[in-house]
Amino acid sequence: MSKLHLNEEEADDSQKGINKASKGGIIYGDYLQLDKVVTAQVLQSELKGNKIHDEHLFIVTHQAYELWFKQILWELDSVREIFISGHVRDERNMLKVNTRIHRIVVIFRLLVDQFSVLETMTALDFYDFREYLSPASGFQSLQFRLLENKIGVPDNLRVPYNRRHYRDNFKGHESEMLLSSEKEPCLLKLVEKWLERTPGLEGDGFNFWKKLEANIFEGLCLEKKKIVKMPDTEEKEEMMEELTKQKELFTSLFDIKRHEHLLSKGERRISYKALQGALMIYFYREEPRFQVPFQLLSNLMDIDTLMTKWRYNHVCMVHRMIGSKAGTGGSSGYHYLRSTVSDRYKVFVDLFNLATFLIPRHWMPKLDPNEHTFLFTAEYCDSSYCSSEDSD
Amino acid sequence: MSKLHLNEEEADDSQKGINKASKGGIIYGDYLQLDKVVTAQVLQSELKGNKIHDEHLFIVTHQAYELWFKQILWELDSVREIFISGHVRDERNMLKVNTRIHRIVVIFRLLVDQFSVLETMTALDFYDFREYLSPASGFQSLQFRLLENKIGVPDNLRVPYNRRHYRDNFKGHESEMLLSSEKEPCLLKLVEKWLERTPGLEGDGFNFWKKLEANIFEGLCLEKKKIVKMPDTEEKEEMMEELTKQKELFTSLFDIKRHEHLLSKGERRISYKALQGALMIYFYREEPRFQVPFQLLSNLMDIDTLMTKWRYNHVCMVHRMIGSKAGTGGSSGYHYLRSTVSDRYKVFVDLFNLATFLIPRHWMPKLDPNEHTFLFTAEYCDSSYCSSEDSD
Amino acid sequence: MSKLHLNEEEADDSQKGINKASKGGIIYGDYLQLDKVVTAQVLQSELKGNKIHDEHLFIVTHQAYELWFKQILWELDSVREIFISGHVRDERNMLKVNTRIHRIVVIFRLLVDQFSVLETMTALDFYDFREYLSPASGFQSLQFRLLENKIGVPDNLRVPYNRRHYRDNFKGHESEMLLSSEKEPCLLKLVEKWLERTPGLEGDGFNFWKKLEANIFEGLCLEKKKIVKMPDTEEKEEMMEELTKQKELFTSLFDIKRHEHLLSKGERRISYKALQGALMIYFYREEPRFQVPFQLLSNLMDIDTLMTKWRYNHVCMVHRMIGSKAGTGGSSGYHYLRSTVSDRYKVFVDLFNLATFLIPRHWMPKLDPNEHTFLFTAEYCDSSYCSSEDSD
Amino acid sequence: MSKLHLNEEEADDSQKGINKASKGGIIYGDYLQLDKVVTAQVLQSELKGNKIHDEHLFIVTHQAYELWFKQILWELDSVREIFISGHVRDERNMLKVNTRIHRIVVIFRLLVDQFSVLETMTALDFYDFREYLSPASGFQSLQFRLLENKIGVPDNLRVPYNRRHYRDNFKGHESEMLLSSEKEPCLLKLVEKWLERTPGLEGDGFNFWKKLEANIFEGLCLEKKKIVKMPDTEEKEEMMEELTKQKELFTSLFDIKRHEHLLSKGERRISYKALQGALMIYFYREEPRFQVPFQLLSNLMDIDTLMTKWRYNHVCMVHRMIGSKAGTGGSSGYHYLRSTVSDRYKVFVDLFNLATFLIPRHWMPKLDPNEHTFLFTAEYCDSSYCSSEDSD
Repeated sequence: MSKLHLNEEEADDSQKGINKASKGGIIYGDYLQLDKVVTAQVLQSELKGNKIHDEHLFIVTHQAYELWFKQILWELDSVREIFISGHVRDERNMLKVNTRIHRIVVIFRLLVDQFSVLETMTALDFYDFREYLSPASGFQSLQFRLLENKIGVPDNLRVPYNRRHYRDNFKGHESEMLLSSEKEPCLLKLVEKWLERTPGLEGDGFNFWKKLEANIFEGLCLEKKKIVKMPDTEEKEEMMEELTKQKELFTSLFDIKRHEHLLSKGERRISYKALQGALMIYFYREEPRFQVPFQLLSNLMDIDTLMTKWRYNHVCMVHRMIGSKAGTGGSSGYHYLRSTVSDRYKVFVDLFNLATFLIPRHWMPKLDPNEHTFLFTAEYCDSSYCSSEDSD
Repeated sequence: MSKLHLNEEEADDSQKGINKASKGGIIYGDYLQLDKVVTAQVLQSELKGNKIHDEHLFIVTHQAYELWFKQILWELDSVREIFISGHVRDERNMLKVNTRIHRIVVIFRLLVDQFSVLETMTALDFYDFREYLSPASGFQSLQFRLLENKIGVPDNLRVPYNRRHYRDNFKGHESEMLLSSEKEPCLLKLVEKWLERTPGLEGDGFNFWKKLEANIFEGLCLEKKKIVKMPDTEEKEEMMEELTKQKELFTSLFDIKRHEHLLSKGERRISYKALQGALMIYFYREEPRFQVPFQLLSNLMDIDTLMTKWRYNHVCMVHRMIGSKAGTGGSSGYHYLRSTVSDRYKVFVDLFNLATFLIPRHWMPKLDPNEHTFLFTAEYCDSSYCSSEDSD
Repeated sequence: MSKLHLNEEEADDSQKGINKASKGGIIYGDYLQLDKVVTAQVLQSELKGNKIHDEHLFIVTHQAYELWFKQILWELDSVREIFISGHVRDERNMLKVNTRIHRIVVIFRLLVDQFSVLETMTALDFYDFREYLSPASGFQSLQFRLLENKIGVPDNLRVPYNRRHYRDNFKGHESEMLLSSEKEPCLLKLVEKWLERTPGLEGDGFNFWKKLEANIFEGLCLEKKKIVKMPDTEEKEEMMEELTKQKELFTSLFDIKRHEHLLSKGERRISYKALQGALMIYFYREEPRFQVPFQLLSNLMDIDTLMTKWRYNHVCMVHRMIGSKAGTGGSSGYHYLRSTVSDRYKVFVDLFNLATFLIPRHWMPKLDPNEHTFLFTAEYCDSSYCSSEDSD
Repeated sequence: MSKLHLNEEEADDSQKGINKASKGGIIYGDYLQLDKVVTAQVLQSELKGNKIHDEHLFIVTHQAYELWFKQILWELDSVREIFISGHVRDERNMLKVNTRIHRIVVIFRLLVDQFSVLETMTALDFYDFREYLSPASGFQSLQFRLLENKIGVPDNLRVPYNRRHYRDNFKGHESEMLLSSEKEPCLLKLVEKWLERTPGLEGDGFNFWKKLEANIFEGLCLEKKKIVKMPDTEEKEEMMEELTKQKELFTSLFDIKRHEHLLSKGERRISYKALQGALMIYFYREEPRFQVPFQLLSNLMDIDTLMTKWRYNHVCMVHRMIGSKAGTGGSSGYHYLRSTVSDRYKVFVDLFNLATFLIPRHWMPKLDPNEHTFLFTAEYCDSSYCSSEDSD
């Protein structure tokens, strides 16, 4: 017998509540302003006298994207505020920062999946109404550009859009918002400042960088001695070659001039000091004070990866919808979008590239918890300086 | 070297477009009415002077749900219209019906995943603003109730909400919309009518049901003879028992009285004839004319399964957010929602239960493509009768 | 022009590697023992002379589940080992514990999604080979039972299977493994011990529980005074009623006898002290020392939720595949599985139910970072006591 | 009160089964050969005396990929067999073909999601054991290369791997399997043959291509006349330009020489006739006989898109794990993989590019169901010619 009827206890439990809705106060639809949200679907095709069923899906999907972009901006602004205000110095705020950055990750994951819905529309269905949309184009999404700026996509690495600066595609007020978002400190720059303050970098303290350099070159030297003693074989030759490569690699790591050069070319994006901080956190991620910072760095990479996956999914969908024709905004569509799926749009590219500089655990400078207590003791700020964000 | 710069060809391809945005016409933000959609986030906590960060997520998530509910209703109404108008008789419309039903499936799959975003909010974060929401409650979602009614959740199987009829929780206009949605033919009833017309059921034609009954009982009879001849063992006894069960099962299938009885109890939901049609489509799903109808039945089951998974995910989230306390609408929250995750809310439960009546392939009545051409030849309607849905 | 050809730089970068495969050493297929893994698909239907295409999918899907179960057990055992050995006292190990528990979460999320693959098989396709599988049944998955035991599903809350103890369905060696897994400390019990040691609970220290009790009843008292002063209205009456309920709720929280009673009934699962620890971590989750422990508690709830979603997805699939008939193992299939989707199988149910006892922030006992330094200073163990897990 | 105890009816329903496991016959673990599958995890790091926890995840993940690759090959081979044997001419087999191709889509979707599990391992965790794996490399996955070949990745468009032919990275027996898979008809070629037979293309029948050409150029001509009559404005000029582009585009479509040229360059992959068939199915997808073929074309595009997403996800993971260093197989890792995420690896690229040639509905050659009955009447083969695949 199938289970259709509740037993008494269930029936009882499920009806215990008091019906508060009759008592006044706000109700669901008003709270969510559904009169605005679910009435905002006006089909251009219908206005032009040729209602096309699938245009509704097109509208709703893009509105859902914009809703989520708004939420991402909300989280992003709150995190940036914590950094800007200096509240981040009170390490009690790290959970908040990390949670909100992680929430952005989860939202982006949803946004990548969300393409599956629009993909139920075929190129032929889209063709029936796409002319009505011209010249509206996803390129004109203000929120998406703000989001890119606030995370840290640099103006000078942007692919131009139809040979024009991206900002020229927006009207006065919006263009100003974009300009101002470029001038505000972006997440990348704020994280950079924070990394520069990583405990353990102090020259008069643990002096991580100097110790690391010494250890690495000592390690390489020992390795060389071992190889030299080997009988002459092809294998020995290869190992020596490999060692030479390694030495070059690490020499470059400790060469600040080279760093500045890569910075100027856009191949690195954060300061030399910040890079050191990131590597310090990587190597000592298990120390109590670095556990959450390490998660934060991972989450920042996740954002980068997911944004790039989002772009790639977008490219795939566009290829399917319009082949290699121009988009509704007149852009070269597929080719323009494809050019944005590249490392130039990866903001935290340095965090990825640090994987190139990993070393054996025994080369890492030793930490003694009795001596280096700074990794076990968090900092806080007194309330006069770091007042809680939400309370004011 | 990392790939930061486009080669010439790429640079060229990505800039070929004409910038149409400057030429007038609709632009992205206006098209999507973003002035309404992304300004509809008003935090009650902020109005009450205690802005809580996470309330924004709560609002956006629910608005995203409502947007997608609107889209589901859009698809559902269009499909129901094709059935109601009789256009479904022109089998050219089956692709449209199936595609739109499948789109609902894909949307529901997204909605199930979408819980992951709200789950980034902890019970403690929710506690900080939940009192401001009272008595608003998800129970008051008009669109979700419409959706249930239009698919076919029957009024008399609904779990009461705080001992009141679900419709009493809505205001005048909304209550009327709900009542009228109950009176309109729901998807279940429309599918039932369509199944009743399944080719092959005609008593003066292929007469599937009669042939099937004969074959099954002949098959069981042969089986019995085989078993009887076996030496007396425990295994024989068990096989005989099993056979008896089988016989009872199939006897019940061909007993229209029993069907009417189960209908009256809500354990079956479609007519006896429709049940026969569904089984005919199941068994002959590979015949050209049944391929798409079979997909349709599968998609209907998917909708049911996903709605029920959505409900279950909702239950899990509520358990996490408020434990076993009352919800913001005063409902007994967790327990109320848990009671809705049951077969009583499964609309197409008959399609699932048909799996109980499967038979070996050689028991199925044989079809000869030369004789039974109806399974190879689709029907259409002349244009005067079945004019295209979108053109009028 | 579409992009088919690499530019020179790309062509160069993509070919820089040395081909090491020719130099000896392990290769991919041997490393993964693919000779075992991808040759283990033997179709019973084929052995019985009636090869059914879809049986291959059935086998591969279940093997994939078992592979992931093995991985979950691997993580689970390593985490349990850290707790059992006392390494958890060195807070440097918390990142490891949390990361591995989180990995289990991610795997379970995949396993829930993985049903989508098996759902491409219809009931009719399954019918064609299901008789060949009898009496094999998913109920006989040793690894899944081990996993339940090691997380902490208690023996006495298990739903019997065909009126027999679950262990009686396994053969000698397997039955012993199950028994021994029941005797080893499960994750629930280890987490309980760890929670009991939460800093801040000490009676001669911060004494969280006593302070909390005092604050709550003082808070309720003040509230009462406020209400009493109000003019007599229906609203006042309701508020008073609500207050009374609150008082009862919190009185029960501080009643150890009631806790013991609920424990004995299985409605609570962890000790009174552990419950206090969990609430302490909930309330002070932003303190540096509790940030990762709080994430851990969230991840444990995620495991519970996902296991229960996995069960529910399983139920849905079974309903679709076999209706309400018996499963291949002879179990009552659908109904048995449905009965396991209940709170009795939720291991960390206490963590969910704590949401019932949340309070306004100003009722929480105040912490002064100058005085209560224990929340800013992590503990470590010297190496003689807490040697690194992986090195021995 | 929480729901821990079953009511009587539930308790009854869940225990109704007979315990067949005690009766002999195959059991779960033997059926799935778990003795092989879950014992195939041997850690190289452990063999070398330095057991690294995360290597287990690395192994299990790759084994899970290989299991699913095996399933994809199983489906792929069965579909190719239906095409090769000519069974596809019996349109009753289209459901089977479409269902299995769709199953591959669903599996690939899972495989894309599956990266989330491996992404729980950080670059630092990987570093600890990656040297032990050398020179094993994912590049050596035989099944993945077979899969590419059987779908239709052409040998001459493959990116070389460390300047060597991909097949040279495999040992004798495997290399032969690869060579033979290149020689067998791949899915692309089989679909091409099938498309060439699309009903409606016959020169002495409906003659779709000739009718289409006539309609398009007539349509363009009418458009031109309309534009010419407009007053001279910038808009007129632009419309005329646009029209000229359109004319060029369609002139190229009907130019078989150009098609042959693009074929030779690898920018098109299917014959001119097959291209016509695909466009015929696109335009008349709602006709009963084309509904399932249209779904099939969509599913083939899905496979392409998902394979390319899989590749892109792989690139992202590798970037994260090893930065821009060489992979374990000595490949240039990141850069090699990145070069495979391009249209050259898209097999069904023609189906995407057809979106470039869409036209207004009123330009499509008219079909009259009374006259053109071929779109309503499916074909079958008599049993002597097309015996059911599974029965022999």
